[in-house]
Amino acid sequence: MHAALELLRLLPLLVLSYLEALARLLLPPRPKSVQGETVLVTGAGHGLGRATALEFAQRCCRLVLWDVNQHGIEEAAAECKSLGATVHTFVVDCSKREEIYRAAEKDHQIEQTFAVNILAHFWTTKAFLPTMMKNNHGHIVTVSSAAGHMPASFMLSYWLFVISFSSSKFAAVGFHKALTQELSALGKDGIKTTCLCPIFINTGFVKNPKMRLMPILEPDMVAKKLLEGILINQKMIFVPSSLNIFLFMEKILPERALAALNKLQAIQFDKVVGYRNKE
Amino acid sequence: MHAALELLRLLPLLVLSYLEALARLLLPPRPKSVQGETVLVTGAGHGLGRATALEFAQRCCRLVLWDVNQHGIEEAAAECKSLGATVHTFVVDCSKREEIYRAAEKDHQIEQTFAVNILAHFWTTKAFLPTMMKNNHGHIVTVSSAAGHMPASFMLSYWLFVISFSSSKFAAVGFHKALTQELSALGKDGIKTTCLCPIFINTGFVKNPKMRLMPILEPDMVAKKLLEGILINQKMIFVPSSLNIFLFMEKILPERALAALNKLQAIQFDKVVGYRNKE
Repeated sequence: MHAALELLRLLPLLVLSYLEALARLLLPPRPKSVQGETVLVTGAGHGLGRATALEFAQRCCRLVLWDVNQHGIEEAAAECKSLGATVHTFVVDCSKREEIYRAAEKDHQIEQTFAVNILAHFWTTKAFLPTMMKNNHGHIVTVSSAAGHMPASFMLSYWLFVISFSSSKFAAVGFHKALTQELSALGKDGIKTTCLCPIFINTGFVKNPKMRLMPILEPDMVAKKLLEGILINQKMIFVPSSLNIFLFMEKILPERALAALNKLQAIQFDKVVGYRNKE
Repeated sequence: MHAALELLRLLPLLVLSYLEALARLLLPPRPKSVQGETVLVTGAGHGLGRATALEFAQRCCRLVLWDVNQHGIEEAAAECKSLGATVHTFVVDCSKREEIYRAAEKDHQIEQTFAVNILAHFWTTKAFLPTMMKNNHGHIVTVSSAAGHMPASFMLSYWLFVISFSSSKFAAVGFHKALTQELSALGKDGIKTTCLCPIFINTGFVKNPKMRLMPILEPDMVAKKLLEGILINQKMIFVPSSLNIFLFMEKILPERALAALNKLQAIQFDKVVGYRNKE
């Protein structure tokens, strides 16, 4: 009963929230400035991470680049420096918790980090979140995929790869949503969160990806969309934004129609290469 | 262009799919029989796994029970046997891939397994799916949680636990969805999939859970709902089914209203106990 009354008391807030959402739709917020912020980019030696580092470098940030591949981050660092950014690089295998903590300790300024976690590792967030919380300032970016909302049918001989890929991308979306909600519950409104969900990016992870109804994306273009979203504190970024329509269709289409649509979409690639074998 | 034409050709199928969905809503399908099927239940020594094993035992299945806790599965096996079921037990730590394969090899009949994976392990599925595919017969059950669709605010000092818990439950939903889709794409329509998403179950994993708008569930009741769903090949089972409404609200409510609703919901518990410390 008491709970029902409280639900009723939510009504004015509901109206207010809709008005606020409408206002935000009509008057897009002004991008914030990230000048002088320390930005940690994980996986910065390659593909999307590298393109994102370059975007931040253009905005006069202090960059901290992590990657498992030394050659990759050195190249990325040189490009960022040529744009006038201060850059620190560390060779870190983000799948190893100890390496993350060791790298985080090496650089005390990193504690002021603004945007982290381009590759969405639990332990990276855990290493930096407490200081962000103390300062009530920061931004955590989680990179997932369209496959984190709606698994897509790939080439059939790769079904095991598809299943574990989709699970991990769903996990990244869950990570972002739970993190966002916990920060809100804790009243840490100075720490923003963004989740990036693009379709296929041509980063060499799979060979010759092809789709019929959507383009294959280039890392530069996705990094630009990501930065635009980060700067207006957008929580969920779909690239291309028409993905929203597909995801809405997933909610309303019956199973049989969805299966046919997926078949039509016909995502294909020649082979899973993986990042490590790429060199 | 060609793709647009094919989209148009989907229209009759779309109408057909909606009619089919409507028919299924009005005429619920007849439960299938699982009598004589081999059913592997992982995590069978405790809580939901044990309650599920008992439900299958009542339906004259040949049960294979796995759990890391020997005492737990022995107790569960005794209960199942008293209901007249044939029971085989194995002490398996499902977090260890080698142990899964060793247990799977020990029992050749297990290859005919019908329902697996009460705890949604990638490697359990990988061990059994190829034979299921060969026979085009089986049913894979993935246990996730309401938190795999919408992370809930817990007690605030547990934010790290909540984030990793939600990620893993989102991952389980993604696993189920990708598996379902791959099976459909491969034409393996004899292998069914079910994902169970309950709210809090009182299994001792956390101490004294409380929620204001929903009940705390008991394992027996959830296992009954799970069996009902499995027998009519239901793909997604929410317990309680009113969760559907909450999840729909999540899609249409603006952020601020959702945050207020979550606060009202006020999930609480005294402490995370974990299964291993329970004994």
